[in-house]
Amino acid sequence: MRSLILAAAFMVSASAAFAASDEPIQPIQPAKIANPAMVELGKKLYFDPRLSKSGFISCNSCHNLSMGGTDNLKTSIGDHWQEGPINSPTVLNSALNLAQFWDGRALTLQDQAGGPIANPGEMASTHTLALSVLQSIPAYVAEYKNVFKSDKITVDGVTKAIAAFEETLVTPNSRFDKWLKGDKKALTGEELAGYELFKDSGCTACHNGAAAGGNTFQKMGVVEPYKTSSAAEGRVAVTKDEADRFYFKVPTLRNVELTYPYFHDGAASSLTQAVDTMGRIQLGKSFTKEENAKIVSFLKSMTGDQPDFKLPILPPSNDSTPKPTPFNK
Amino acid sequence: MRSLILAAAFMVSASAAFAASDEPIQPIQPAKIANPAMVELGKKLYFDPRLSKSGFISCNSCHNLSMGGTDNLKTSIGDHWQEGPINSPTVLNSALNLAQFWDGRALTLQDQAGGPIANPGEMASTHTLALSVLQSIPAYVAEYKNVFKSDKITVDGVTKAIAAFEETLVTPNSRFDKWLKGDKKALTGEELAGYELFKDSGCTACHNGAAAGGNTFQKMGVVEPYKTSSAAEGRVAVTKDEADRFYFKVPTLRNVELTYPYFHDGAASSLTQAVDTMGRIQLGKSFTKEENAKIVSFLKSMTGDQPDFKLPILPPSNDSTPKPTPFNK
Repeated sequence: MRSLILAAAFMVSASAAFAASDEPIQPIQPAKIANPAMVELGKKLYFDPRLSKSGFISCNSCHNLSMGGTDNLKTSIGDHWQEGPINSPTVLNSALNLAQFWDGRALTLQDQAGGPIANPGEMASTHTLALSVLQSIPAYVAEYKNVFKSDKITVDGVTKAIAAFEETLVTPNSRFDKWLKGDKKALTGEELAGYELFKDSGCTACHNGAAAGGNTFQKMGVVEPYKTSSAAEGRVAVTKDEADRFYFKVPTLRNVELTYPYFHDGAASSLTQAVDTMGRIQLGKSFTKEENAKIVSFLKSMTGDQPDFKLPILPPSNDSTPKPTPFNK
Repeated sequence: MRSLILAAAFMVSASAAFAASDEPIQPIQPAKIANPAMVELGKKLYFDPRLSKSGFISCNSCHNLSMGGTDNLKTSIGDHWQEGPINSPTVLNSALNLAQFWDGRALTLQDQAGGPIANPGEMASTHTLALSVLQSIPAYVAEYKNVFKSDKITVDGVTKAIAAFEETLVTPNSRFDKWLKGDKKALTGEELAGYELFKDSGCTACHNGAAAGGNTFQKMGVVEPYKTSSAAEGRVAVTKDEADRFYFKVPTLRNVELTYPYFHDGAASSLTQAVDTMGRIQLGKSFTKEENAKIVSFLKSMTGDQPDFKLPILPPSNDSTPKPTPFNK
């Protein structure tokens, strides 16, 4: 599956790459959980704010699983209420991305997971500190040992567990997926017309595959420059190749009704606005109000099964656990 | 039950007030859920950061149900990372309290729930703004109508629903409760010795009833003044009676292993330290290291069943929903 997605990425337009169906978007497959104990450990870590310096910010703070795996803010809030430089992308279906972060600077979910913990503008901890917090908590040590057969908690293990949990965060069974699988009544006429217009307009050149995106980097502003106050440069920050300036990972459109506001700068607060901007700057099209509404209606049919698990209960700290320090720099 | 607790409160020392058992601490009873639909609505609201101005802080941020219903910080973090004036008390078993907040300024959970939403140092919204956010979201309007038979969402309904959810957050079935109910093997010898010492030392004068606290206001520093940098004055702020200066609601000891750090100023980071300080300033006792350890061991036997429900999925905002404004004052 992963190799198929990578292949699709290199083909840029991937509409023909999937043999399973003639449609450019494929159904999301349910997660196959290889190691439930690792997933459970990763789930706790994902919800644990003690991975941050302040003891207040967890992965779930900015990738909130109650809210489409995002924070629904233009840009995120970090340690000491710092304003983040970029919109927090959804963690839902992120295992389907060809790389992580808007500029793809992490190749895997595991690589990604270590970043925010030690980013001074986000969780503001260090890997050393976060590990010493976890190592001080006997229940974490026991759970870690059960999963990794080691008494010593490492960044590699922690990020592997978080990634294993994140890999379960796929959202199958949207109405659109039901339609793709043959239930022709799953979409309304309006939604189906929106999907046809979405394809005919060229949106699927970038938004294709199971995630309807996430599998290529594309320039933001193909036909018309994108005006933004964001300083984010895109993929050039990773490749140092000027040709990659303003190239960003195409965001998934799965659950897009939940993952507002849109674009890397969070500048589009509504789907209507996002569709309008994309039409203009990427495709040179001005959608009428009716066309726009049809596409939006289609997009909302891609909301799938949301995370379905019990709120994790975290093991307590104790006298030997390093204390959070929210109020000193 | 409530009237019994209030009666106990007025008797100050309540050891004889409970007919059910000779013990001064009573088992926690499981929640009786009268209106499941109201509880479900309240649960969503409890987890919804859109009740804050920033869109980032929910009830669960400072009363985190993954962490004993607290934030495990000395004092809480509010809007724009403001440092709160007081330690965030646990929401677990808070329905058993004679009043809410450390100074008891809210008589009911419903009264309490409205406070943080509009407190500029906490969630920093206004009731008007929070209501207009909720009213804009059709799924909330429908759920509210189902519960309250009204199309118009009010503060009264919102806080009633949050309180109904909070009333379910009781934690029965601790090992100590099992012992109270007759399972004499539920406690170790050390824990039982700790409980005997806890009673013999006079701790149960204040920490009694089902919540082992929460049912009286008491002076912090009976025998010896309590030294603190906290400006909190206690109950006098409510009653304007100088005799109530430094009187605080006795905190529950239920789940105390999870609700660190301790006291209204969060100054005691460990149970060992908390037991030592309480012995000295409230009872004029210096516990030996061994005695202290016994009491701590008993206290840890009061951790009960933690919240057990699925992570709520929140209904999305839409174009008409007022936007969060995390970065302007």
